[in-house]
Amino acid sequence: MIVRDRPSGLRLFFVLKGSILSRIWIVLLVNIVLAILVTIFHGDLFSIKITLTAIPFTLLGLPLAIFLGFRNNAAYDRYWEARKLWGQLLADARTMARQCAHLIQAPNPPATPSGSNDDPTDRPKRMILKTIAFAHALKHQLRGTQADTDLDGLLSASERTRFADHPTPTVFLLDELGADLGQCIREKRIDPCLAANIDTTLSGMVSVAAGCERIKNTPIPFSYTLLLHRTAYLYCFLLPFGLVDSIGFMTPFVVAVVAYTFFGLDALGDEIEEPFGLKDNDLPLDALSRTIEYNLRTAQGERNLPAPPLPEHYCLM
Amino acid sequence: MIVRDRPSGLRLFFVLKGSILSRIWIVLLVNIVLAILVTIFHGDLFSIKITLTAIPFTLLGLPLAIFLGFRNNAAYDRYWEARKLWGQLLADARTMARQCAHLIQAPNPPATPSGSNDDPTDRPKRMILKTIAFAHALKHQLRGTQADTDLDGLLSASERTRFADHPTPTVFLLDELGADLGQCIREKRIDPCLAANIDTTLSGMVSVAAGCERIKNTPIPFSYTLLLHRTAYLYCFLLPFGLVDSIGFMTPFVVAVVAYTFFGLDALGDEIEEPFGLKDNDLPLDALSRTIEYNLRTAQGERNLPAPPLPEHYCLM
Amino acid sequence: MIVRDRPSGLRLFFVLKGSILSRIWIVLLVNIVLAILVTIFHGDLFSIKITLTAIPFTLLGLPLAIFLGFRNNAAYDRYWEARKLWGQLLADARTMARQCAHLIQAPNPPATPSGSNDDPTDRPKRMILKTIAFAHALKHQLRGTQADTDLDGLLSASERTRFADHPTPTVFLLDELGADLGQCIREKRIDPCLAANIDTTLSGMVSVAAGCERIKNTPIPFSYTLLLHRTAYLYCFLLPFGLVDSIGFMTPFVVAVVAYTFFGLDALGDEIEEPFGLKDNDLPLDALSRTIEYNLRTAQGERNLPAPPLPEHYCLM
Amino acid sequence: MIVRDRPSGLRLFFVLKGSILSRIWIVLLVNIVLAILVTIFHGDLFSIKITLTAIPFTLLGLPLAIFLGFRNNAAYDRYWEARKLWGQLLADARTMARQCAHLIQAPNPPATPSGSNDDPTDRPKRMILKTIAFAHALKHQLRGTQADTDLDGLLSASERTRFADHPTPTVFLLDELGADLGQCIREKRIDPCLAANIDTTLSGMVSVAAGCERIKNTPIPFSYTLLLHRTAYLYCFLLPFGLVDSIGFMTPFVVAVVAYTFFGLDALGDEIEEPFGLKDNDLPLDALSRTIEYNLRTAQGERNLPAPPLPEHYCLM
Amino acid sequence: MIVRDRPSGLRLFFVLKGSILSRIWIVLLVNIVLAILVTIFHGDLFSIKITLTAIPFTLLGLPLAIFLGFRNNAAYDRYWEARKLWGQLLADARTMARQCAHLIQAPNPPATPSGSNDDPTDRPKRMILKTIAFAHALKHQLRGTQADTDLDGLLSASERTRFADHPTPTVFLLDELGADLGQCIREKRIDPCLAANIDTTLSGMVSVAAGCERIKNTPIPFSYTLLLHRTAYLYCFLLPFGLVDSIGFMTPFVVAVVAYTFFGLDALGDEIEEPFGLKDNDLPLDALSRTIEYNLRTAQGERNLPAPPLPEHYCLM
Repeated sequence: MIVRDRPSGLRLFFVLKGSILSRIWIVLLVNIVLAILVTIFHGDLFSIKITLTAIPFTLLGLPLAIFLGFRNNAAYDRYWEARKLWGQLLADARTMARQCAHLIQAPNPPATPSGSNDDPTDRPKRMILKTIAFAHALKHQLRGTQADTDLDGLLSASERTRFADHPTPTVFLLDELGADLGQCIREKRIDPCLAANIDTTLSGMVSVAAGCERIKNTPIPFSYTLLLHRTAYLYCFLLPFGLVDSIGFMTPFVVAVVAYTFFGLDALGDEIEEPFGLKDNDLPLDALSRTIEYNLRTAQGERNLPAPPLPEHYCLM
Repeated sequence: MIVRDRPSGLRLFFVLKGSILSRIWIVLLVNIVLAILVTIFHGDLFSIKITLTAIPFTLLGLPLAIFLGFRNNAAYDRYWEARKLWGQLLADARTMARQCAHLIQAPNPPATPSGSNDDPTDRPKRMILKTIAFAHALKHQLRGTQADTDLDGLLSASERTRFADHPTPTVFLLDELGADLGQCIREKRIDPCLAANIDTTLSGMVSVAAGCERIKNTPIPFSYTLLLHRTAYLYCFLLPFGLVDSIGFMTPFVVAVVAYTFFGLDALGDEIEEPFGLKDNDLPLDALSRTIEYNLRTAQGERNLPAPPLPEHYCLM
Repeated sequence: MIVRDRPSGLRLFFVLKGSILSRIWIVLLVNIVLAILVTIFHGDLFSIKITLTAIPFTLLGLPLAIFLGFRNNAAYDRYWEARKLWGQLLADARTMARQCAHLIQAPNPPATPSGSNDDPTDRPKRMILKTIAFAHALKHQLRGTQADTDLDGLLSASERTRFADHPTPTVFLLDELGADLGQCIREKRIDPCLAANIDTTLSGMVSVAAGCERIKNTPIPFSYTLLLHRTAYLYCFLLPFGLVDSIGFMTPFVVAVVAYTFFGLDALGDEIEEPFGLKDNDLPLDALSRTIEYNLRTAQGERNLPAPPLPEHYCLM
Repeated sequence: MIVRDRPSGLRLFFVLKGSILSRIWIVLLVNIVLAILVTIFHGDLFSIKITLTAIPFTLLGLPLAIFLGFRNNAAYDRYWEARKLWGQLLADARTMARQCAHLIQAPNPPATPSGSNDDPTDRPKRMILKTIAFAHALKHQLRGTQADTDLDGLLSASERTRFADHPTPTVFLLDELGADLGQCIREKRIDPCLAANIDTTLSGMVSVAAGCERIKNTPIPFSYTLLLHRTAYLYCFLLPFGLVDSIGFMTPFVVAVVAYTFFGLDALGDEIEEPFGLKDNDLPLDALSRTIEYNLRTAQGERNLPAPPLPEHYCLM
Repeated sequence: MIVRDRPSGLRLFFVLKGSILSRIWIVLLVNIVLAILVTIFHGDLFSIKITLTAIPFTLLGLPLAIFLGFRNNAAYDRYWEARKLWGQLLADARTMARQCAHLIQAPNPPATPSGSNDDPTDRPKRMILKTIAFAHALKHQLRGTQADTDLDGLLSASERTRFADHPTPTVFLLDELGADLGQCIREKRIDPCLAANIDTTLSGMVSVAAGCERIKNTPIPFSYTLLLHRTAYLYCFLLPFGLVDSIGFMTPFVVAVVAYTFFGLDALGDEIEEPFGLKDNDLPLDALSRTIEYNLRTAQGERNLPAPPLPEHYCLM
């Protein structure tokens, strides 16, 4: 995610980081060169005058506006829904931590601290650590990366082995949390009515994961994208022929501006349509999952933790 | 669902799989041939000059834009809501599996493993299998197909018979799950407060089924579709007469581009408006229900399962 | 609701059932006759040349597009929300049936089957029948019709008398269901935590009824409708004067097409804005309430029921 | 709220009640007079020809369309959300009545009817009356009026005194309902699980009140309204200069039509943006709160109540 | 937030407070000066005639309309969602106060009033004060200011110290409220089913905080803003060249009007996109949090409190 203030005045035109220009400069250049050639040859192609005026572009503007507007809104909706899901995950994780810490009673009789991983006294704390692990695991699942050092100190050795073996680690972690909760109920450390609330929180985390998988796995129908790309390309590459008779030597300049906005809007849609990647405008999943870790660890009294990451070169990952 | 990367450059124009062209080429061809004839005869029809200019098309563009934009958004909303419902089903199924596995206690006194289908020890496991069967049954109900081998190993023989006899199998399965839950409550294997949460999960699955039936059974009002088709056809078939005087021999080309976008948008809307079918852009219900099966079986410790299906020829069913 | 496949090719132009033409042919005819007269007299009215060009219509197109687009979306949103509410009612009814059948225990000690209407053993079944009655009663309330034979076999004689006496029968039925639930709680046949879930289902049915009443009783503000009608009528009736100078004898044809889309869109909005009526494009409340009856009766083991109604002349009521 | 059928044919143009004309006729008249003057002087102002054509109005149409469309949608969304909140209040009130009547048990041992206001036997009934009072109090809070005779018979004398003293009476009533519920719990007349459902209903009523206050206290940002008004006024008052050269003596007529739609849309937005007032198009809060009273009183067996109010002069308040 | 009535007539054009003019007058002035120069030199730049007509601006209007409309809607949606979240916070706080006051029983045996901060009798009251503190803390977190005197009388000395030490004070307060609730459960002062409802209210407050953080930390993707600014600036600065040939000396005036609307819309979007600041059109967080304090204190019987703040110079902070 690009994090920078809006530049003002002329500097507006010389910002590169955060501009979509780096992704579209080739096709833009080709288009401008074509416009220059058309201007030089007065719209003739192989000695045949291409009799286009502005009218076809007004007509073509109609479906193009529908496509671009639709695609733009759909892509942003996906981006924003993905961000909402992660905001919900932050809320669910905080709720989970609050519920585990205060609603689950100490074991009765007090367990002798065995130091083992199954020490019931520590179960609420281990559940909170697994909640943090869930956020990291979801991030890695969505980005297709490996959860390595992120999980240090969050899972026990045996949990880590099973985590690595499981085909969908996020499902594994929620199942473990469900097992912990069931164990607390059987040990009578929590009233079933309150356990039902924790169970609801877990279901909320399942919904977040399912929602993110939906956005990742179901793109905007490919035929839309194809139809939009084709129309936009045809529009921009034919445009010089339609303009040269009325605005003469200004044709390449106007074509450049129009093509910049159309190709830019198109490329931007490509980028935020899949908001879980590592491109400039994608969501800062790493910062988000680290914020969850930071929040849940401080809530347990830990201090001197590394703060959540800050943007580098105006970019937060 | 078409799953492929966006082609770049010139290849963009030669992609066939995923293009809507295969559905509209006849009407498009007729339109282009008409445009060629109009261009040759300079807009005369039976020796009478058709005095159309671009103005009527600008005026007609207004209602057409409203129709196309509306229909496009409505169709995509249906598609995306259907996908959301299946995402919710995935979440509900995972939640159901977690709840059955960890909130329902073992019978007390332990049941002697009788091997029969009513062995109470296995009831949570059988509930999870019925949840999988529900996903498959919903898929088949929405597609109008028969659930044959999909149900192997999920239902007992007697359940399978009653399943086949029931007019709405999805209702049957949820009713069975409700009966299982009631039985667990009567056997005191689950606290009512927690049973209430499982009951809520079942209600969520009922809502998903009702939502999918709503989308399947209630199309966009037919009069809209008819009004839109008629306007789009009239617009495209009259267009050559309006353009020939100003852009001459480029008329067929421009008509082809405009008609391609209008007919393409229209056909695409037809396709995703009913997202449960078996066309290219429809939802991959088979992959979704198999993912549910895969998730729920692995959560119970099964491994070496067939992975959920992958796209064939860029197409996921 | 019109249920028919999209006609293809030329047949598209000759479909009458489902077309909005039957509702607007008078005003359309008047408009076309005016356009013919204007064409014959070259735009003179009482020997005064009406100096209109296409420009005023481009300017007027702006507010008209805002009005038509807004009204169109608002009307469809009302239609679709109404359908969603009935989908929710279907889900709530199925949930209610499942909960009554499996969460309410048999009376203890078993009641001697007295055959009377207050036989506690039958109470869950009677609650399910009242749920069916609620769906029928809501349909009749929304359509302003009388629930006669629909209620046969659903309510006891005394209930039916009180039903007929009550000013809002849907409120009466939900109150009766609440009383039944309270009775089951007092008889200790259901745990309060589970009863709370049934109570929530009842609240969902209350919300559905309140939502449907909202749509029925609160139309789109009348001033919008008036402003839109006036603008659309002025636009279409002035249009011939603006076109005749540039497109000559094609004027009546173009006016006919434009007026058909504008009046059609307007009339269609009128129809689906109030989706509970008995017009062609209204919601099939009868089919929906019968589906609920069919579902709930089959879930109780009844078979050989009359199937939910099918479309007649492409129309489902 | 205007309640009348859509007039047809010519009568459409002579409807006054429900038309926005009464609010905009002054500015409209000024505009038309200006257009007549411009037409007479051929667009000269103090002997200087104002060289405007239609082009600036096409360009200005773009931001104006964005403003008007945005403002129109935002205002209607506020109106419709306000109506939804009151629909939710109707549902919550019915739910509250059902829950109080059937989930709260008679006191044990039976209280001797003391006739005092604290007679525990009557508490459910008094809670229902307070729910009715809440609906009336919310109406008066939103309209800035005094709840006088509306509360007769709903509150006891001491409650009425405290109601009058409280700075926010709606908060007072919900607090009283919460106290009644707490008292029932302490008297063991309701199981806590069921009391939790009533508490949830109360929270729903709190949300309705907070939602209505939000709409009342937070208008659409003033700068939007200002920017829109200025642009619309400039557009309409400059329009005669741009049209007079091309359409001559028809200028005042076209200006009148365009200005009527723009000013009308603007004034209509002003009206429904604040939907709780007493203007023609505002929400019929009085009818809604009386419907709630009628519903809740009939549900308790009262008959021969005054029916909810009907529209007077096509207007429901 | 600007709170003032809409001015009427000519005064509309002389309102400054609430107008966006103060933020854009520099760039507007530069644009107008350029337009005057272009008009004087008849569109020549360094003796070269810039051959622009209105056509490029019609074409450029298409992407610009998509950008401006999208950005405008997205910014307002953020503003309105932020307001909804604070409305939800108001509702949650009132609910919390009602639940703490009436669902938590007095301690049994009655605690001897020790006067200490841990006096269990006062715990519900202290929980309500912490809820008020949460609203103030959230306001300060979102505005980046320090919660100084706002917290006087709300937190005990030791709580205040820990509050100041905690990296995210809002998380701290909800954790404290969770601990208080857990303590009440352990002391058997509240039934777990009812405690579950209070826990749900706390989760609602967590969601509000997470939603506000989402809006604050995730702006509209920077590339959109950049693309929009560039297109709008190019459009307005090139516009004089396109108009001068057709409308002559009116060019600077028309350019001023068009640029005012485009730059104004752009600047307004900048302002409400981040609704938690201290600019004129931002949300009145201070008034909102003080309303919460006022509501919760009066509900506990306090009177003679300072009323929530009123607008100063038409502006509510």
